[in-house]
Amino acid sequence: MTKTNPGNYFEDFAVGQVIEHATPRTVTEGDRALYGAIYPTRFALPSSAAFARAVGLDPHPVEELVAFHIAFGKTVPDISLNAVANLGYAECRFHRPVVPGDTLSTRSEVIGLKQNSNGRSGVVYVRSTATNHRGEVVIDWARWVMVHKRDAASPAPETVIPELAAAVAPEDLVVPPGMSFTAYDFAAAGEPHRLDDYEVGERIDHVDGVTITDAEHMMATRLWQNTAKVHFNTQARPDGNRLVYGGHVISLARALSFNGLANAQLLAAINAGSHVAPAFAGDTVYAWSEVLDRAETAVPGVGALRLRLVATKGRDESMTLRGEDGTYADGVLLDLDHWALVPR
Amino acid sequence: MTKTNPGNYFEDFAVGQVIEHATPRTVTEGDRALYGAIYPTRFALPSSAAFARAVGLDPHPVEELVAFHIAFGKTVPDISLNAVANLGYAECRFHRPVVPGDTLSTRSEVIGLKQNSNGRSGVVYVRSTATNHRGEVVIDWARWVMVHKRDAASPAPETVIPELAAAVAPEDLVVPPGMSFTAYDFAAAGEPHRLDDYEVGERIDHVDGVTITDAEHMMATRLWQNTAKVHFNTQARPDGNRLVYGGHVISLARALSFNGLANAQLLAAINAGSHVAPAFAGDTVYAWSEVLDRAETAVPGVGALRLRLVATKGRDESMTLRGEDGTYADGVLLDLDHWALVPR
Amino acid sequence: MTKTNPGNYFEDFAVGQVIEHATPRTVTEGDRALYGAIYPTRFALPSSAAFARAVGLDPHPVEELVAFHIAFGKTVPDISLNAVANLGYAECRFHRPVVPGDTLSTRSEVIGLKQNSNGRSGVVYVRSTATNHRGEVVIDWARWVMVHKRDAASPAPETVIPELAAAVAPEDLVVPPGMSFTAYDFAAAGEPHRLDDYEVGERIDHVDGVTITDAEHMMATRLWQNTAKVHFNTQARPDGNRLVYGGHVISLARALSFNGLANAQLLAAINAGSHVAPAFAGDTVYAWSEVLDRAETAVPGVGALRLRLVATKGRDESMTLRGEDGTYADGVLLDLDHWALVPR
Repeated sequence: MTKTNPGNYFEDFAVGQVIEHATPRTVTEGDRALYGAIYPTRFALPSSAAFARAVGLDPHPVEELVAFHIAFGKTVPDISLNAVANLGYAECRFHRPVVPGDTLSTRSEVIGLKQNSNGRSGVVYVRSTATNHRGEVVIDWARWVMVHKRDAASPAPETVIPELAAAVAPEDLVVPPGMSFTAYDFAAAGEPHRLDDYEVGERIDHVDGVTITDAEHMMATRLWQNTAKVHFNTQARPDGNRLVYGGHVISLARALSFNGLANAQLLAAINAGSHVAPAFAGDTVYAWSEVLDRAETAVPGVGALRLRLVATKGRDESMTLRGEDGTYADGVLLDLDHWALVPR
Repeated sequence: MTKTNPGNYFEDFAVGQVIEHATPRTVTEGDRALYGAIYPTRFALPSSAAFARAVGLDPHPVEELVAFHIAFGKTVPDISLNAVANLGYAECRFHRPVVPGDTLSTRSEVIGLKQNSNGRSGVVYVRSTATNHRGEVVIDWARWVMVHKRDAASPAPETVIPELAAAVAPEDLVVPPGMSFTAYDFAAAGEPHRLDDYEVGERIDHVDGVTITDAEHMMATRLWQNTAKVHFNTQARPDGNRLVYGGHVISLARALSFNGLANAQLLAAINAGSHVAPAFAGDTVYAWSEVLDRAETAVPGVGALRLRLVATKGRDESMTLRGEDGTYADGVLLDLDHWALVPR
Repeated sequence: MTKTNPGNYFEDFAVGQVIEHATPRTVTEGDRALYGAIYPTRFALPSSAAFARAVGLDPHPVEELVAFHIAFGKTVPDISLNAVANLGYAECRFHRPVVPGDTLSTRSEVIGLKQNSNGRSGVVYVRSTATNHRGEVVIDWARWVMVHKRDAASPAPETVIPELAAAVAPEDLVVPPGMSFTAYDFAAAGEPHRLDDYEVGERIDHVDGVTITDAEHMMATRLWQNTAKVHFNTQARPDGNRLVYGGHVISLARALSFNGLANAQLLAAINAGSHVAPAFAGDTVYAWSEVLDRAETAVPGVGALRLRLVATKGRDESMTLRGEDGTYADGVLLDLDHWALVPR
């Protein structure tokens, strides 16, 4: 028993502690294919090596979420195996493209701690950094989770709550070196809309829906080496359902957003994210987006759209985020605030 | 709303119109692996790079249906998103092997139109051409679909019905340049039968059956970036079933046909195809073949078999295509007339 | 009908007979990705090309079980299509790593025959050898299966029962040439335990469980081109269930064993294996291990653990292999005796 990983409890974390997560993972063309089999993604850049080459990216990057899920998955055994809840993300930036052959590793630093008033759990804030095998940073992000204490009687640590930005500033978004949208092929990409065609406040109903199956969400989650029991084991929850990994809903919604946001080719940042309600096999997931902001980047021809991506269980053509009482509307599964790069 | 794709309606098509379909797609070894995970294929040539090299094909081609499904999938958002029915295929030729690294794009030309007498829909005929990133044609085919009109009151176009051949002539079949079957390894291929071992009129019961699951047909269909809602969304049909993509049944039947047609290594042409009945998860698919014709090709040692590949729901050892009234027998799902290349 | 493979019956086998199995198969990065999507594997060596390179293995090998399942699958159409039961394995050795691009073929020699007293079936012993496209042996193993007779009246062959070792001797284990664990990164591998940290007799409960789905076990089994009908066809068994391929349970259990045996990086041998009970979709599979022996190898720094890997339906924290009557305890699915290579 002592050789298996019980996961860390709240009192195992200390501010400033650095954890090197296990299992480096090499990304391959197999990951791209599986991602395309599990999510209805059609963005031209990750779909086509020729399109990517034409905008200056060679070798052919995989979608940012492939890298994110792999990098995130590594943190689960150390950070959130005993988590009660994933509370939030912030300051997630995609620093450079990930291509087949890259080996990703993740390290986390504890940047905040706050015991809950009930004394039985607490919130752990970490900043995680994924690097490739050349030691270059590919993604970093902050995340906070509520974690059980091993022993309610153990003393509370000093409360440290990190300052996290409400959104990544547009000037901090990274455009991959060498990328240019001057020769961008709108016909190949599937839609004619440029940065300036989107209005702040505009909402886009992405129309299509996908019904979840257990086999698909388990295959995706396993691909990322995410080990949280509730995703795989019908004996892990009283209701016998396998809880769908929140990242599965992110990827479903992002893929569905192609229909109306086909030119949002790359994710540049995730500003904030809430998994509002759990999803299970049999749920039909739809998505809508709201344009939150629009910005230029340092690279001519490349703009950035700040978008709220909302996944819902069942379609909500009214695209209602919150009810009159300010709480999320029924059916909302995900509220993801992010920046995407688009042609100007 | 205006940014999403509503698909084309009957009145949006005009004879001579050319549509460049979106989302070029690079084929990878991941596609080959997924194809082998989803279909019980065992043809030696696409399974083994060494076998392919020994018959003159290097790099290692993927199965023709991988390329076909990808090429076909691109046409769905523009041609058949509002289709009532896929009516037929003709004159489909495989012009050159597709190998990992090739990026495929598809273009369609409208070659015929005929409004239905009810005034609410019409038949659209297109010729679609898939090219690789070097601009070489890899597959072309004609297809006709029945499409809704947006407005029943809009005027009928002039009726144009293209002349399509009942079958591709043997002399028009393309044998991949450099391919030879003089060093063909029958033991590795799994069966000893050559062209002349098959008799016109002979029927082969392929024996094995596969029960469909929703996860598998969705993963396949998504891999081809086919976006037709009915395949993915239990809310898209009144019965709550996800309709299986017709191409999934084609690939299942083709893979099952290995048992008795192991040497039918490459598809050279599809002459005609009918999706006779819908298929759903839980259906068990079997296949049988009828030898329709036999031909030589320009390449010594390489022959061509014209085959009718029939998929059935449940096994029909009597291999009955049609009842006495001339309509398809109960249980027939697919009737696919094609040419395959075999050793002589 | 005569062109399809009816499989071999007991009287089709003769001691000394050699069968070249069909369908050579090239391993790709797609196989690695699918293996990781279907099994919760996290061993650092097959996950990371960088980790593999650091221990001297470049190019990046796939897991031994990927190669084993492919090699084994080739034997099914000739050896076990008419099998009543898989009775056992012995003397399975992994001779050299398999890397993407390798094409595997399998040959079997009949090494024993024993007709059953009922006269209707018999036991066939074969030694199978898988080679890569350079003709190098990658795996060999002995296996015995009970096979139906075509005709109960046909005469019994002379009984020949081969001598098979109870376990591969440690000095016969192959350490891949060039591999060294002197620069082994325990943090990346996920656990600190070395050879000497494991005690003979020690049992390790691997804690995690995975609930099987039909789509996943069929995809895996198809990937290995294993054609046994019972895995794919709900009409093949009276109960309408699809029997899970025994190798699927092996791979699930091996992957689950990461938690406690993270440094058991490579399989070196399978000494014996019993598929104790059938598994079906809906079963939740857990695993535990018992340390049977510990040995050095010829390579400094590389040790070998002889392990009993037990898969169970539902978790058995008592880790009971057999009841007082000596028969396997309820819930035991698999009992696999093998050698794994670990750092010293």
